[in-house]
Parts: sequence; structure tokens; C-alpha cells
Amino acid sequence: MGINAIVGQSGGPTCVINSSLAGVFSACRRHGVQKVFGMRHGVQGLLKDEVIDLTEALDAPGKLSLLRHTPASYLGSCRYKLPESGQMEAVYQAIFDALRRYDIGYFFYIGGNDSMDTILKLSDYAAKIGSDIRFVGVPKTIDNDLTHTDHTPGYGSAAKYIGTTIKELVRDSTIYDLKSVTVVEIMGRNAGWLTAAAALAKAEDCEGVDMICLPEVPFNVDHFVEKVERMQREKPSIVIAVSEGVKLEDGRYVCELADDVHAVDAFGHKALTGTARFLANTVARRLDTKTRCIELSTLQRCAGHLTSRTDITEAYQVGGAAAKAAFEGHTGEMVALDRISNAPYQCGTSLHPISEVANLEKKVPLEWVNADHTAMTEEFLAYALPLVQAELTPIYVEGLPHHIYLPEA
Amino acid sequence: MGINAIVGQSGGPTCVINSSLAGVFSACRRHGVQKVFGMRHGVQGLLKDEVIDLTEALDAPGKLSLLRHTPASYLGSCRYKLPESGQMEAVYQAIFDALRRYDIGYFFYIGGNDSMDTILKLSDYAAKIGSDIRFVGVPKTIDNDLTHTDHTPGYGSAAKYIGTTIKELVRDSTIYDLKSVTVVEIMGRNAGWLTAAAALAKAEDCEGVDMICLPEVPFNVDHFVEKVERMQREKPSIVIAVSEGVKLEDGRYVCELADDVHAVDAFGHKALTGTARFLANTVARRLDTKTRCIELSTLQRCAGHLTSRTDITEAYQVGGAAAKAAFEGHTGEMVALDRISNAPYQCGTSLHPISEVANLEKKVPLEWVNADHTAMTEEFLAYALPLVQAELTPIYVEGLPHHIYLPEA
Repeated sequence: MGINAIVGQSGGPTCVINSSLAGVFSACRRHGVQKVFGMRHGVQGLLKDEVIDLTEALDAPGKLSLLRHTPASYLGSCRYKLPESGQMEAVYQAIFDALRRYDIGYFFYIGGNDSMDTILKLSDYAAKIGSDIRFVGVPKTIDNDLTHTDHTPGYGSAAKYIGTTIKELVRDSTIYDLKSVTVVEIMGRNAGWLTAAAALAKAEDCEGVDMICLPEVPFNVDHFVEKVERMQREKPSIVIAVSEGVKLEDGRYVCELADDVHAVDAFGHKALTGTARFLANTVARRLDTKTRCIELSTLQRCAGHLTSRTDITEAYQVGGAAAKAAFEGHTGEMVALDRISNAPYQCGTSLHPISEVANLEKKVPLEWVNADHTAMTEEFLAYALPLVQAELTPIYVEGLPHHIYLPEA
Repeated sequence: MGINAIVGQSGGPTCVINSSLAGVFSACRRHGVQKVFGMRHGVQGLLKDEVIDLTEALDAPGKLSLLRHTPASYLGSCRYKLPESGQMEAVYQAIFDALRRYDIGYFFYIGGNDSMDTILKLSDYAAKIGSDIRFVGVPKTIDNDLTHTDHTPGYGSAAKYIGTTIKELVRDSTIYDLKSVTVVEIMGRNAGWLTAAAALAKAEDCEGVDMICLPEVPFNVDHFVEKVERMQREKPSIVIAVSEGVKLEDGRYVCELADDVHAVDAFGHKALTGTARFLANTVARRLDTKTRCIELSTLQRCAGHLTSRTDITEAYQVGGAAAKAAFEGHTGEMVALDRISNAPYQCGTSLHPISEVANLEKKVPLEWVNADHTAMTEEFLAYALPLVQAELTPIYVEGLPHHIYLPEA
């Protein structure tokens, strides 16, 4: 079998996806793998032979540490969907030709549910043609919506960023002795994990958000406005965390009620944007109050200056566990995180057939949000709090965080 | 004359406005002032007798340190414009009655140009009625648009946040091998200081932004789109920093071309929002490219987890200098920062008659932006870089930054 390894990053980036890359790389080197290659822009780059030798690129003191401090995908990313098996055989042949050319024995892909679809299709195709290349998936997504894993690397740092930012926004939004409504839009197409993290802001030193709107709960615009009106009778400054993916009873996204450009990506996902703006404008029109909308936007996935050390450590561990699994002969599997205990927080890893994971989504259990959607329950807090603990201090150069940088070829 | 001091915070908050409050408070205590009072929500709160005793509220170990780590206005803020002198005499009488009631000798107001208008009117009124209360202004604004001061406390931290965030956004926006345009909207109604800070992102590890649109330069939508098209021929992923306040030749704000709700505040300022969205949508319609708009919104003024230590130290110093000035008999003046040298960076303070400062705005010199608006010059970088140096590590409790919190009465 091939003696080298190759690794790619796919889908939306996180603050810790490079820590998983460092984990894969280090485990391969420790195992004696001679060359570790990196695909630029995932399989899309592999198809164009955009491959770099990581053993060279990362071969200098401090490079791996800098990699762990750098947000977004060092190697670049893609949103490329492989054709269904049996269709466009040429694409699969081109990929396997490339892998043979680089003498690859181990193939790692760091990504979310769409990316696991790539691992599934490639390992199925390998079985079909009798290739012994081992394909292992490394979980990554701020959305925390992968099944079979307690949580996903990337979620903890995004949750820490969201909790911190919401706390600061609550501080900022409540300084005036005025009626105001601040609607904060948080990512999460179908799963409300990130929006739920807004609940972390509530503490002895912060009153927290006043409402949490998850995509798991059907949304009614009239009820929403009535509730805001009711809340403002008690408390003039209201802060609301709303998922970009909240949907009406009829299945339409709330943001579709606004009139913006809505593009569709390669996986057929509509661009969701404008939910908070639509709601803030609706409230402004119907109630006598100042409103403001704030979209946390991609800031919540790329704020490398504020990461969870727990998260960044686990991201490294799942990378290493994926490499170990491949060396032991596993293929077509994904590494998962298994929580062992909450106090003290302990987490191990396990392996799951990728066919059980790919293209599925894990939602927030509805019993973790209270009846009037003003707060998450203790169960959610017990789940989420360990994931945001401790920090990784940025490396500052000239006052700004320093990153590792791979220019486009 | 009165033996006590009173201090208020006014206008939009910053990350370091509480550091100035700590500076005023500490200097008053050191000077032997018996009671230091705080106005809730500035003079608006004073008029409703919403006054707290800071000597009590801050009298516990660690409270002052926590105050310096807490963004936004601890005391609350207001956007209250005092009536023109000679009008509504009753308002002035009510304020001076309150000041006599609390036996105030020293009045400090931490704010931007609108707030300095308050100091000007109150000190003029004091002269008119023969009051010996001393009124001193403490500069504060992320906008950096006050005259007579080298820079304003609050700007350095906002600039550090913007530089850092832009660096992370450039990292995030360029990961796909796709044409894309990211338009980042940055605060600054008429002065482009904050938008210019996007230039700090450019370094040996970051290619930086591709265009910088300041409100000082008349904006032309067609030229903008043509320039984006031209740039994308060389480089598929474009990141643009644009001020919320960019204006057309005819004086209209670009955001007025969008169709949102536009409120007007007490000072007659229009709410500026939607500039980036309008431009991103325009580019998406006219060019074959993916676009994204990102509003840094109030995050840029309240991100207490990422402050400049230089800024937070200077904010404390100007608070102390204001107190010292008042004790020495000054009134109707504002403290300014005077840069002594860049290498090493040294800054002192001076005093200026508030009448020379109030209601004026300092713009970015046009010679500090290059001819095609793709970068700021070395002069700007030499000016801005010292202001973002060093950090103040947040105090983390349970994974989130800890703040001092004063609940509403």
C-alpha cells in the first residue's frame, strides 16, 4: 500500500480546523509516514493537482504552534460535492490517479456533514475498485450538528466567542435609559447550537439575553412582536438571540420575507441572511422603540483571537485519533468525541462508520430550551460550559495576532 | 466651593471609557475629595436625581481593576443635548440645584464632541451665574474625530479590534478558490479613522484589504463596481473596508440608496446602516461573483476582550489629568493627548478651552490614503500602530470575561 498521507480541509472554516490539521500531521510524522501532503481547497484542488508537501511547509520551529493559532483553513477549502457513485466515473478515476501518483496510503478529510459525504463516496469507490487507501474523516463544524459525536471541534470556540460577544453587546445595548431592541443574528441553518450559546452570557455580572429563537422551534412573526412588546413593559432594553435559520410554520425561512439577493450554493443551501434585520425593522415599524440588528456573521467562525483551549486541544486530539485509526486499518470511518464525565470534564474518542454520519444533522433537544424561549435549561449549560473553558493566548506581533500564511500559488 | 466631585459618561460607549472613570475616581480619592458621585445616564440622569455614590460602589478590593476590564459605560450613558443658552433656563437651574445638593465642586464629563457641547454650556452657565463649580471634559470616542488631541481614548482599542478582525476575515474570505467580494462596514459618520484602521491588517502574514473607502472621499457607485471588476481579474477574493458614512458627490449617504428604516437621533444624526449591504448587493447584481457584507456594528466599540493596553492606560491618564486640572482651578476645558515621539512612543496631556473643541470634527488627512484608495500611507501607519500596542488580558470566569455590573435602580 501507499506510504504517504494526504489531508484536506473542506466546508466552512473554524478557529480550530488548523489544530486538527496539526494533529493529523504530527501523528503521521510520529508514526514514520515519510511525506504528508496537503490538498489546496480540498478534493477540488486535488483534481487540479494543487498539492503541497506539508513536511516541507511546516518544517521550521514554531510553525506547528503558529498553525494552531491561525483561524480558517490553512490549506484553503471547497464546497465541492462529488458526483453520485456510478455517475461521472472520470472524476473518481482522476482522484485515485492523483492518490497513486503521490503514493498515498492514508487520506484524511477535516470537515462537517457535507465533507463526510466525500469520505463516504471515496471509501465506497475504493472498496469497489479494490484500493487499499484508508479514508478517515475528522469532524469539524462550528454548527455542532454532526451525529454520533458529543460535540464537534469548532463549536466550543464559536460558543465562547458568542457568549463573550453577547455579554459585551448586552453591556453596550443597555447603557441608555431608552426603549431599545437589539436582535443578534447567529449562524446555524437547521440546528440552534450556536444560538443557544448566547445563553452562556447570563451570569452574576450579566442579565443575559431576553429571548432565544432556535430554528428547531417554528417561528411566528406576530407572536414575536407581541412578546417583545410585553417584555418591554418590564424592561426597556431587550436583547434577543435569533438563529439565521428560524423558519415559519409553513417551512419558509424568516429571512425570505425580506427582499434580498438569495444565492444557492453547490449543496443547494440557500444563503440565509437578513433574519435579524427583517425582525428589527418589523419591530421598529410596529412598536415605538429604537431597534438594532447585529449579524455575528463569519466573525463567529474566524475569531482566532478568542478560542477555547478545550476546543483547540480536542481538535488536535481528533486529528491524531484519525491518523491512529488509519494506521490500524480503519477506513470509511469518522472520529467522534465521547464525553466521559462533566465534573471533571473528560472526553475520549471513538470511531463510527461514515455512512451513519454523512448528510445527517443533530438538532438541539427541545427540552433544553425553557417553555417561553427566554433561556436554555441547566442541562444545556452543563453540556456547553465545559466546551468554552480556558484560553489560548494569541501570539501578538506589532499589536495584532500573528498567523501562518500560505499564499495562493 | 463644593467639596465633592461628580462624573458622568455620555454618548456612544467605548472599551476604555470605564478606564477614564477609574482615572477620575482614583485622582479624586488621592486628592482627598470626600465623595465622588456618578450620574446614571449622564446629565439626563442627574436631572432625574439618578446619582450613585461611587465611593461606596467601588469600595472593595479589585473593583477598580474590574472597572477597567469592563466595556461600555458603567454608569450608563445618554444622548441628551442641553438647550441653547438662554432657552429653557429651568433645565440649567435644575442641574445646578442638583449640584448644590450634592455639594459638588468638580464636574467631569467623559464623552465625544456632542458631550463636550454639554461641558461648554454648563461652564458658560456657571460663569453667567457666578458658580465656582469647575467643569472639565475627558475625551472619549472610538471615532477619533476630536480636534486638538493627537487621538482619542477608545480609538486605539477599536483600531486593534478592527485590524485583528479584518485580518481574520481576510483569512476566512480567501479560503475558497472562487470569485468573492467581502464588503466590511466600519463605523465613522464623517471621519474615516476607524475604516483606515483596516489597513493595519496588512503584514508579512496577511495580504490585507484590497480597497479602503473613507467618508472623506466622495463615493461613486459605478466607479466602485468597475474597480472591483478590474481587481477581480488579478485576484478572485476581494476584501473591502468601507465606512458607514461614505457619501455620494451630491452629499447623500450611500446607505440612503437602500430602502431601510432610517431613524434620526437627538443630535439630528441619521442612523447609518446598510452601506455594505447595498454595495454587496449591487456588486452581486452587476458582476458574476459571490458577495458578502459584514457590519462590524457595535462590536467594534464594545469588544472589551480585545483592548489595547496603550489605549486603556491613556484613558486612565486623561481621567487623572482632568481631575488634576479641576483641582488647579481650570474649568471649561478638555484634556487632550499630545504625542511627544513615535519611537519610543510617548504621549503627554494638555488642556484646551472647550469652546475650541466642542461640535468640531477632525477628518483623516487625504494625503494619508494612497491615490487609488487601496492602502493607507506609511504616515498613517506610523500614527496608528503605537495606539494598538500591547494587551490587557481579560479576567476570565467560567470561560467568559468578567465585568463589573451596576443593575438599573
